[in-house]
Amino acid sequence: MKKYLSVVYLGPGKVGSEVLRILNELKLKIKIVGIARSGTKTEEIEEWIRIAGRELLVVDTTASSKTIDWLNLALAQGGYVVSSNKKPYSASQQEYEKIMEYTPHVYYETTVGAGLPVISTLKELIKSGDKIKRIRGCFSGTLGFVFSQLEKGVNFGEVIREAKNKGYTEPDPRDDLSGLDVARKALILYRLIGGSQELAKIKVEKLYPEKLAKETVPEFLRLIDEYDSAMRERMERAKEKHQTIRYVAEITPTMCQVGVVEVPTVSDLGSLRGPDNIIIIETERYSERPMVIKGPGAGVLVTAGGVVGDIIKIMEKI
Amino acid sequence: MKKYLSVVYLGPGKVGSEVLRILNELKLKIKIVGIARSGTKTEEIEEWIRIAGRELLVVDTTASSKTIDWLNLALAQGGYVVSSNKKPYSASQQEYEKIMEYTPHVYYETTVGAGLPVISTLKELIKSGDKIKRIRGCFSGTLGFVFSQLEKGVNFGEVIREAKNKGYTEPDPRDDLSGLDVARKALILYRLIGGSQELAKIKVEKLYPEKLAKETVPEFLRLIDEYDSAMRERMERAKEKHQTIRYVAEITPTMCQVGVVEVPTVSDLGSLRGPDNIIIIETERYSERPMVIKGPGAGVLVTAGGVVGDIIKIMEKI
Repeated sequence: MKKYLSVVYLGPGKVGSEVLRILNELKLKIKIVGIARSGTKTEEIEEWIRIAGRELLVVDTTASSKTIDWLNLALAQGGYVVSSNKKPYSASQQEYEKIMEYTPHVYYETTVGAGLPVISTLKELIKSGDKIKRIRGCFSGTLGFVFSQLEKGVNFGEVIREAKNKGYTEPDPRDDLSGLDVARKALILYRLIGGSQELAKIKVEKLYPEKLAKETVPEFLRLIDEYDSAMRERMERAKEKHQTIRYVAEITPTMCQVGVVEVPTVSDLGSLRGPDNIIIIETERYSERPMVIKGPGAGVLVTAGGVVGDIIKIMEKI
Repeated sequence: MKKYLSVVYLGPGKVGSEVLRILNELKLKIKIVGIARSGTKTEEIEEWIRIAGRELLVVDTTASSKTIDWLNLALAQGGYVVSSNKKPYSASQQEYEKIMEYTPHVYYETTVGAGLPVISTLKELIKSGDKIKRIRGCFSGTLGFVFSQLEKGVNFGEVIREAKNKGYTEPDPRDDLSGLDVARKALILYRLIGGSQELAKIKVEKLYPEKLAKETVPEFLRLIDEYDSAMRERMERAKEKHQTIRYVAEITPTMCQVGVVEVPTVSDLGSLRGPDNIIIIETERYSERPMVIKGPGAGVLVTAGGVVGDIIKIMEKI
């Protein structure tokens, strides 16, 4: 007879609603203690956590950096944490290490690649004695779309406006083009394989000229065409060598960087299409031929599915 | 303070030796109770299992159909089972169901795709409420090599002799060309997603003419050239349509079949090279774009790593 898990849910947005719907459908032994919205008082959330005792799970599907204290509070009293929120794991190295003192109680599979088994696979390889030599990947569906369109010959500025109009980008497209979201994911994987680093110190290539950083969004969208020729030249230079360009995160045990790289057209990175994410894992055991995992790395359904997957792993443990 | 796990090891071959080496290196809380070789008496193995009590793990890295009784004996007394051996899970439906009465104690990740996270990923998708709609995959490194060479224009007979000389095939290459090994893996996945079927009833395309079934191996290797023109024609017909041919397992909730299919050259199946395995998973959540896992699906190091991965999952549970 398994125990009931008391859940404090942070961030009942689209992913949160779908997670709660699935949990209800699966009839898991779960009791929702509280659902924190943006207006919920800190004292109230802390109270929910405290009364839940040790059979506690805090689920964080926000995009906020303010949840970290609640996660720590829950972990310190013996509870569990499931996050799709990248912020706590890409916060300062010190804050990261504080959370990871409770590693077996921390589940954050969906912070990289959403429902794709990225973190669990890396963890299992390491635990089983393998050594990670290199990870490469495309971790942004938005930038995947952008580079697919560039490859077709569409101009950079036009692609950005198309992506923005289709709702593929953040309200300010520079949030995607800054590479910061990819850098957060790269940092999460770098720390997972033993690296120690601060987000601000990661080498990240921005996909817009610095002088457009302070413009308003409409002004930015008008002026970004200035970048067309530079991007077209990079793509053409690559094509001359039967290559293409991709926005790639590269992680080794001693290095973590994010930016545009040339890759062979006929390769796992080069053949990636549209919004798919990909991760290519090279290890001591997977040396001649890597392990490759690919698929949609964002979206409400696959993210919610991954969050529920983490919750079920916890329920099987307790 | 975790308990010691008592291990009865069946089949100390190449994979077995590597598993034991890794377990020793990782300094896990494991006590090897007995190692069964081909000459070990049944009574002795049963005795090892019985004295181990409930903190028991039977590891089966044989390729034998005779281990199933020991697995059942271990499970019935509350023990755990880790197998890279496909036979028990592709045995009769009745035998399969008997083992799966103890599902949470049965780990068999490496029976399909070796160390690739195939079974764990499918299980987790299902547990988290997703519905598997279709699985397609190439599960034979040997046949992967064969079809890569055919694509390059090498004649079928020549490819088979090359594969045999390089040690890529079983001593009798017909064991690979029969498709039976792929059919076993397909059946394991079909049963995992809820299907019920017998191995003998799966539609399997043999890659050699029936009349060569009874020849000696040298005679078979001499006569297989007769099949060259038929295979060349299939490849050429495919190429006219920008396609190629692959030996593919296809599984849906109501169907499981194995054989040669035409696939677009530019596709996950069509771009597969050499001995890599691939699995393409389409579900309710992964519908527009599937989840794809690719990499070496055989080999001592990756299989042993996967077996140790299963063992560690058990040790984290107990």
